[in-house]
Amino acid sequence: MKLNQPIQLGDFAALFNTEFIGNPEQEITGINEIHCVEKGDLTFVDHSKYYQKVLQSAASFIILNTKEYPCPEGKALIFSEDPFEIYNRAVKHFSTFSLSTQLVSSSAKIGKNTIIQPGAFVGNDVVIGNNCMIHANVTIQNHVIIGDHVIIHPGTVLGSDAFYFKKRPGFYEKMVSCGRVIIGDDVEIGAACTIDRGVSGDTVIGQGTKLDNQIHVGHDTRIGRNCLIAAQTGIAGVTVIEDDVILWGQVGVNKDLVIGRGAVVLAQSGVGKSIEPGKVYFGSPAAEVKERFRELASLKQLPNLLKELRK
Amino acid sequence: MKLNQPIQLGDFAALFNTEFIGNPEQEITGINEIHCVEKGDLTFVDHSKYYQKVLQSAASFIILNTKEYPCPEGKALIFSEDPFEIYNRAVKHFSTFSLSTQLVSSSAKIGKNTIIQPGAFVGNDVVIGNNCMIHANVTIQNHVIIGDHVIIHPGTVLGSDAFYFKKRPGFYEKMVSCGRVIIGDDVEIGAACTIDRGVSGDTVIGQGTKLDNQIHVGHDTRIGRNCLIAAQTGIAGVTVIEDDVILWGQVGVNKDLVIGRGAVVLAQSGVGKSIEPGKVYFGSPAAEVKERFRELASLKQLPNLLKELRK
Amino acid sequence: MKLNQPIQLGDFAALFNTEFIGNPEQEITGINEIHCVEKGDLTFVDHSKYYQKVLQSAASFIILNTKEYPCPEGKALIFSEDPFEIYNRAVKHFSTFSLSTQLVSSSAKIGKNTIIQPGAFVGNDVVIGNNCMIHANVTIQNHVIIGDHVIIHPGTVLGSDAFYFKKRPGFYEKMVSCGRVIIGDDVEIGAACTIDRGVSGDTVIGQGTKLDNQIHVGHDTRIGRNCLIAAQTGIAGVTVIEDDVILWGQVGVNKDLVIGRGAVVLAQSGVGKSIEPGKVYFGSPAAEVKERFRELASLKQLPNLLKELRK
Repeated sequence: MKLNQPIQLGDFAALFNTEFIGNPEQEITGINEIHCVEKGDLTFVDHSKYYQKVLQSAASFIILNTKEYPCPEGKALIFSEDPFEIYNRAVKHFSTFSLSTQLVSSSAKIGKNTIIQPGAFVGNDVVIGNNCMIHANVTIQNHVIIGDHVIIHPGTVLGSDAFYFKKRPGFYEKMVSCGRVIIGDDVEIGAACTIDRGVSGDTVIGQGTKLDNQIHVGHDTRIGRNCLIAAQTGIAGVTVIEDDVILWGQVGVNKDLVIGRGAVVLAQSGVGKSIEPGKVYFGSPAAEVKERFRELASLKQLPNLLKELRK
Repeated sequence: MKLNQPIQLGDFAALFNTEFIGNPEQEITGINEIHCVEKGDLTFVDHSKYYQKVLQSAASFIILNTKEYPCPEGKALIFSEDPFEIYNRAVKHFSTFSLSTQLVSSSAKIGKNTIIQPGAFVGNDVVIGNNCMIHANVTIQNHVIIGDHVIIHPGTVLGSDAFYFKKRPGFYEKMVSCGRVIIGDDVEIGAACTIDRGVSGDTVIGQGTKLDNQIHVGHDTRIGRNCLIAAQTGIAGVTVIEDDVILWGQVGVNKDLVIGRGAVVLAQSGVGKSIEPGKVYFGSPAAEVKERFRELASLKQLPNLLKELRK
Repeated sequence: MKLNQPIQLGDFAALFNTEFIGNPEQEITGINEIHCVEKGDLTFVDHSKYYQKVLQSAASFIILNTKEYPCPEGKALIFSEDPFEIYNRAVKHFSTFSLSTQLVSSSAKIGKNTIIQPGAFVGNDVVIGNNCMIHANVTIQNHVIIGDHVIIHPGTVLGSDAFYFKKRPGFYEKMVSCGRVIIGDDVEIGAACTIDRGVSGDTVIGQGTKLDNQIHVGHDTRIGRNCLIAAQTGIAGVTVIEDDVILWGQVGVNKDLVIGRGAVVLAQSGVGKSIEPGKVYFGSPAAEVKERFRELASLKQLPNLLKELRK
């Protein structure tokens, strides 16, 4: 997320009582999780596996739990034994999310000819474009942005929190979500879908994409334009679905993957690795459809093969 | 759908500015998609693969994009470069669906001793029988028909639009849904289910059938009597589930299939072909359970077989 | 369920017009299904396969359809040709569940700093602890008990009826649910989940457990502490998930199983048998992950093996 008002590094360090290396007057302009950092952003790292990646990222301010690394040029380092906790506290402190107590918040901006049906909840600072249809009992959480000519069917939830927890001794600590959901023009989302908001960035559904019922889209996932996604498919977080992809029913897609442009995934497949553009996949774990069908055909012959070999 | 008032072919052609062959005084009495046409119905066809099928169907009025075929006896042909567009415009024009702005529409007919819990939405022209329980936050869209002694658990959606789009260059065009959902007597539907309405015909759940939670039923699917369907199962459109079928949890059934009477499909199976009555199926893709278990048993032996063969 | 007021066996028999063997002054203190009976409980059995099990259970009062067995010491037998019917009638008679006609029942006890968002339904006798967040369009049915610091995301349903039917000639008869849902402290439940209440006992989600979106939990299932359950997973009834278990997305778990402490089940797996503590499983049906990956690796080689063998 971008901060409403930048804060100087020195002021930040005073506020959260942390040591730092860097120019105290340098301005923090945003807070983001490592996968979507930009120049000016504050982020964190607490595992040696990711130190190098984060130090080399676009982030300007890095909270970390080691003093072993020199401060990279133009960046600042903020030291804490528990970078996750400082990050989470900073998100809570700077987040402008607020509680709406009305069914349709008076701070929501609703476009011309857009219809909000009874029982639909529209949170604070939601923006909905023109000519949209928001059906009954839909829930649109704070800060969701919806384009024009969008249809959201009943019971669907936009902007639920990311499923993102840090393992602590004896419990899980929640990563506080402060990201958004952004729905492009001409999108249609079926009934009882759930679209999580980004942890700190945006979950995006591109123009013209159509979702069937009971689809789950995880946090910070970016779905391209003109995709077709059939019922009961689930897409984990931070995955990129490029344009013109077709996912058939009950498909599962793991996190952090790229599904290449125009790829097709057949029903009930489980996608555990990135998929090249234009290819057709099937199975759990998914493989190219020809390869997978060849395996399945040979499996049909296996019982008789075993019988013959035993002779 | 049946038209409230029939329209003469000549008047229809004038309204939509189309050429035609046939008796201009012949009356169009309904508009339906090819899979559920009756005498008197208007339908459309725009792909050479289906011309013969549609010309030989029960439909009396056919919008098509070719003049190569003679007009069949007793029928009429309506010409358009874009039959889908004329059909869609006709559905919009003649559809009597209207917007309800009340949580429970005053045009809904609710039977004796039927309870509508808080937060439930009941659209226009809905008919609900006697002794039903409609739980909180259920959404019942316009024109749904529900029998007696029906229980609908919270969060369930009846009558969401069909997931049915036509590929156009650079976008998908929605087929406008005008069909209904019809729920028989003694049906119970679990929480957070979604039952799409027919594109132009009816999605039907037969008497005494019980659905668990989070089940998806696609448009124009017809489920028979006394079926049991376990949680998170999805059934695509236009499929026929005959009486006494049992589908266990997380099953997927493809569109346009017939699941024969009394068939049983085990959990997580993916049904891609029609199933004969009384048989038990398992797997994705599903096969008869004996055959499938034989394959799985032989697969367990395969790693050792390969090791031995390598020697 | 426990009865609000105990009833003497003789009075019960008079009320339901049944014969019995036993002390007529002995007090029935609860009614429970066989899987969760305690001393003082009434239960039923109607199938010869289960007579011995029920007669040897902790239940003090047993409705059964045979006189072949002697009455065990300290117990009482109640005779009926249709024990299920007497049991169901007794549940209806003694159940204190009542209809709430308000969005938030005035009989619900809501803790300090707990927020109930617009559109959420809270039934009779619900208890919610302190510092909870109940999001919009959530449905909490009667008698659900929720601890402190619990978050329930939009559209989720707590306390829907068990999917539990008895096959009768020509129809299914519903087992009336009278159990509860109990949610521990620090639990987070995602959007559009469905948690069924116990048939007569409790469905429990233990302290610190986190559920993602669109998860289904069947009746009388007991989930331990600090479990992580990813989106679109379904758990059938009466299963025990011990502490620290991780179930990834779209997993299915059958009923009556035990998933041992710290076990991990990979995405889309179908668990049909109990799982030992600490092990990792994959596949449908699920097997230990090493074994399963070995099978999948050998399956990849099978098409070429068949080709070579044909030579």
